[in-house]
Amino acid sequence: MLSKEDNELLTRVSAGTPMGELLRRFWMPALLEKELPSPDCDPVRLKLLGEDLVAFRDTNGRVGVLDAYCPHRLANLYFGRNEECGIRCVYHGWKFDVEGNCVDMPSEPEGERLKKNIKTTAYPAEIRGGVVWVYMGPKEKQPVLPDLEWAYLPERQRTATKRMQMCNWAQAVEGGIDSSHISFLHGATEAQHKRAADQGVVGRNRFNATDRHPVFDVKEVPYGLAIAARRNAEADNYYWRITQFLLPFHQMIPPVVPERDSSNAPYSGHAWVPIDDETTWTWTFSAHPKRDFTDQEREFNGGPEGMWGPIDENFMPKHNAANDYLLDRKLQRELTFTGIKGIPNQDAAVQESMGRIVPRWKEHVGTSDTAIVRWRSLMLRLARELQGGKDPDAAKHGEWYNVRSCANMLKRDEDWQEGCRWLTTGGQIPAAAAE
Amino acid sequence: MLSKEDNELLTRVSAGTPMGELLRRFWMPALLEKELPSPDCDPVRLKLLGEDLVAFRDTNGRVGVLDAYCPHRLANLYFGRNEECGIRCVYHGWKFDVEGNCVDMPSEPEGERLKKNIKTTAYPAEIRGGVVWVYMGPKEKQPVLPDLEWAYLPERQRTATKRMQMCNWAQAVEGGIDSSHISFLHGATEAQHKRAADQGVVGRNRFNATDRHPVFDVKEVPYGLAIAARRNAEADNYYWRITQFLLPFHQMIPPVVPERDSSNAPYSGHAWVPIDDETTWTWTFSAHPKRDFTDQEREFNGGPEGMWGPIDENFMPKHNAANDYLLDRKLQRELTFTGIKGIPNQDAAVQESMGRIVPRWKEHVGTSDTAIVRWRSLMLRLARELQGGKDPDAAKHGEWYNVRSCANMLKRDEDWQEGCRWLTTGGQIPAAAAE
Amino acid sequence: MLSKEDNELLTRVSAGTPMGELLRRFWMPALLEKELPSPDCDPVRLKLLGEDLVAFRDTNGRVGVLDAYCPHRLANLYFGRNEECGIRCVYHGWKFDVEGNCVDMPSEPEGERLKKNIKTTAYPAEIRGGVVWVYMGPKEKQPVLPDLEWAYLPERQRTATKRMQMCNWAQAVEGGIDSSHISFLHGATEAQHKRAADQGVVGRNRFNATDRHPVFDVKEVPYGLAIAARRNAEADNYYWRITQFLLPFHQMIPPVVPERDSSNAPYSGHAWVPIDDETTWTWTFSAHPKRDFTDQEREFNGGPEGMWGPIDENFMPKHNAANDYLLDRKLQRELTFTGIKGIPNQDAAVQESMGRIVPRWKEHVGTSDTAIVRWRSLMLRLARELQGGKDPDAAKHGEWYNVRSCANMLKRDEDWQEGCRWLTTGGQIPAAAAE
Repeated sequence: MLSKEDNELLTRVSAGTPMGELLRRFWMPALLEKELPSPDCDPVRLKLLGEDLVAFRDTNGRVGVLDAYCPHRLANLYFGRNEECGIRCVYHGWKFDVEGNCVDMPSEPEGERLKKNIKTTAYPAEIRGGVVWVYMGPKEKQPVLPDLEWAYLPERQRTATKRMQMCNWAQAVEGGIDSSHISFLHGATEAQHKRAADQGVVGRNRFNATDRHPVFDVKEVPYGLAIAARRNAEADNYYWRITQFLLPFHQMIPPVVPERDSSNAPYSGHAWVPIDDETTWTWTFSAHPKRDFTDQEREFNGGPEGMWGPIDENFMPKHNAANDYLLDRKLQRELTFTGIKGIPNQDAAVQESMGRIVPRWKEHVGTSDTAIVRWRSLMLRLARELQGGKDPDAAKHGEWYNVRSCANMLKRDEDWQEGCRWLTTGGQIPAAAAE
Repeated sequence: MLSKEDNELLTRVSAGTPMGELLRRFWMPALLEKELPSPDCDPVRLKLLGEDLVAFRDTNGRVGVLDAYCPHRLANLYFGRNEECGIRCVYHGWKFDVEGNCVDMPSEPEGERLKKNIKTTAYPAEIRGGVVWVYMGPKEKQPVLPDLEWAYLPERQRTATKRMQMCNWAQAVEGGIDSSHISFLHGATEAQHKRAADQGVVGRNRFNATDRHPVFDVKEVPYGLAIAARRNAEADNYYWRITQFLLPFHQMIPPVVPERDSSNAPYSGHAWVPIDDETTWTWTFSAHPKRDFTDQEREFNGGPEGMWGPIDENFMPKHNAANDYLLDRKLQRELTFTGIKGIPNQDAAVQESMGRIVPRWKEHVGTSDTAIVRWRSLMLRLARELQGGKDPDAAKHGEWYNVRSCANMLKRDEDWQEGCRWLTTGGQIPAAAAE
Repeated sequence: MLSKEDNELLTRVSAGTPMGELLRRFWMPALLEKELPSPDCDPVRLKLLGEDLVAFRDTNGRVGVLDAYCPHRLANLYFGRNEECGIRCVYHGWKFDVEGNCVDMPSEPEGERLKKNIKTTAYPAEIRGGVVWVYMGPKEKQPVLPDLEWAYLPERQRTATKRMQMCNWAQAVEGGIDSSHISFLHGATEAQHKRAADQGVVGRNRFNATDRHPVFDVKEVPYGLAIAARRNAEADNYYWRITQFLLPFHQMIPPVVPERDSSNAPYSGHAWVPIDDETTWTWTFSAHPKRDFTDQEREFNGGPEGMWGPIDENFMPKHNAANDYLLDRKLQRELTFTGIKGIPNQDAAVQESMGRIVPRWKEHVGTSDTAIVRWRSLMLRLARELQGGKDPDAAKHGEWYNVRSCANMLKRDEDWQEGCRWLTTGGQIPAAAAE
């Protein structure tokens, strides 16, 4: 439960809002690299934090991310020509390079002289891990990119995909760090659980199903939150799942199976990037730290018909509010808790069903919502601190992001931070790449 | 003509508005019984008086009407599971019974203890006459259901149907109690009248056509208004049509043919139930007090392609603003006054054409609008009285609703209230049913 | 660049706004005559300056333009019956003539007496040049129609067509008087220019291409602005194009080829008529002062698939924002500056891409925008003068509109106003017609 005022503060992201300014201190995933596949390719529309932008790749392969509206008469540069090292407005031919400099002003007799006075908003952009990253904050505060392990891996060892979500970013983040809902939203029916047990089938995530009210322990860490969920396992054991939240909107999903050595296992994570106050890009990154993904794994992790789809060519989910997420009541009665197919579609159904911006002052949160409560406090505190002049530390320390999430089976008297240290110390960025 | 302030007061229906509070003191038709056909059937979305709701039928056949948003984290219960005596949210599994009690909270370690503190908004619901009725007012003011005769009749003697109307409820009510417009909106062309007369055809409603400016006499009655429209008939006779308005939004259509004994004749009536300020459910109830409807009559009175249609499977009219109600200008020139087929489509065309909320301060009402003027006064007075602490009497006296409307041919010097008494004293609720 | 306040003043057109009141002093193109083809034809919906209207043609062929909403209960007269010399509301049968008089009130017993008290808003309408013109200003200020030459020509010598544009009227006007953008938005690519030159092809508008930063000279004239754009031509010559702007929203396109005697040449012009603050009718008028258009010329100038299309049967452009104006990036790379086919579609793409009302305070205008800057000043001044009580002179002098635009090749030391006088003195209205 949040006051109306805090809910506004948490959810509004346009320029000048406290949360919007906080988010602008961090690099953000903006486009898939393949949306700008080659030098001088077609320009692409882009909207982030409520700002209309245009992205292009210049003749030298550099990425430009500019205010969509030409500073001359505000025609949209999306219709522009991506020419020799710059994008040219089709209305009167003004041309801008990736840094926002006006490099040609052919409509003006004194254009050569005047163009020096014109500069448009240009945001720094970098490509890493198959993703175009953008920084929309103050120039003098520009940090390094976060050292997310997957982004350093060779192309065949990682995938990235995105889908549009029709709600505020905070709603999406809260779903992503909510270890409690997986026992329900993504679960099978009781009947199906029983049927499986009768047949001797043991689910990979059986503890999620058998202990549906985990005990939470949430630690603030330099880069965000480590969210530990403890479930009862056999005998003297607890099954621990540690979800990583990395400021300001990244998450890493714990592996389902605790027994395995995480450095051998593929993993996935999300980022929820605000398009505007009421729309969000839900990114999914997957990686195998040790080996190439097979074609089938690539399609499953990153393809439009895979695990995080189905989506259309504009990254819009095919199961959406307009078709009730293809809710199948028979399926819901007999097999799965929701009757909706696909984990991201189940998430979208509940998160979007709350309305574009959920009125958090009507909630009744419990202990299972500990992570969400802590996350809100953290974000509100950082936003207020920035208003007061204190920059967010994590934005300045990309090296803090070199971690993984963790699932482990520990003795009941073991400390989870000790027991999971070998995992949460994290990813292993290839020395060469991290230079 | 109404002031802007009174127009606001008349039309706004959300919680806390004076009219919204008045309407909440009455039982309202909410769903067709067949939308909740059996115990544990699929939940149904419902919106009334601006409130998002979910309806379900539990294992014992009881109907639950709850706030659509789960009090935990506000996911929509429409996606919920209708399980053993309750609906369960698919996000974290909280479950509610028809009274709004939280009966299971599986995501919380202390759920058994905590669930007692959680209660969601639940509105009492009853099934009568093939319709689910809902009461959305204060618990301590909950009245009995209104004794509308049709609702007590055996299933084969009655029908109920509904269609969505894209305007404010008051606009719809005003069309329904407006005995004047039938000579025009629902009439034939002059040419067609003449052609029929030339051929010796005498219309069943010939007085509506020949005397198009009835004289009105409107009496306030305990349950609402009795609206008498007098038209000249042959010789010394007046043709009287008495439309009943029953608080807060019910109407009974007078029979077309005056000579018949009303207790032998089928009749119809409407209710206009606000979905929100700009959308309305137009209900139509038909009944034969003496005998079963034939299949053809059932289809005509209550079917999707019948008299009150055509509508699609979501009760949306197929002739609507998007297709100009299939206005046929040739038909309009030659045969009917509007060129639009179907009485409800003619009504919708004019009522929706005024805009979602008609600016009544621009009107120029005449004596033919007497019923409308009186209705507005009545509603505004009752809303203001309730603000002042005085409950509406009619809500407390369901027995007052056991009436019928009336059409009669009377001598010119007869008093219509005397002459129509035997009709307006009303319906005959089967003694057993009314217990 | 304009202040936010001036931008509001320039763009808002509803009744009571300063610009709205200024525009209401002028006759406006409202409908194509063929939309009201004959006496007693079907009524037509119409929206101008934010006002919902209905237009009809009565039994005597007179055009009525009335407030869309019947003054009785505000049903839309579009659904009305166009009967013997008046339009009749289908709700209760009130009937109005082209002057807004209530000529029948059949629903009222005292209708004959009461109808004299009822009058609805009616705007004077005239047909000239195949177009229905409407005057929406104060009765006592009603001027004569503007003497636009094309409107006096015989039907076979002129065409008129319109298309809807999804932006504010001022944005559209500014595109129409912007002689600078034609070198870019409507031009070929450099590569294509070069290819043509290599092949010895000389474009008709080669100076627009070779000198892309014309020098502007803008003169205020009694009827508006004469906008001269000077481009370098061969040897000692300048190529001058004089675009006419005629108050409040008319424009005349200069001929492309300067050498020809303008009185032998066909020409075109536009008018941008506000539907409301965010939507505009873009009219195009074409004429040949000397001879009939061929069928092919008629289709090219005025047909739905011609130069100013393609449009559908409701005058909606088929290339529009929803389909990105059928932008073809390959075409854009290889042949044309935009990759969008059709001059009006190119114009619409950039003008609509700025948003419905462009925030002019973010612009950076240059000398090539001189005409636009002057136009804004003129319009703002006239609007403010009218607020102060001073009527716009041009509205009272229809005879001032009898002009043409001009393109001419002059010696570099010649004065363009002298050199173009024989053209800008204008059109030649047939003596008989102008009576």
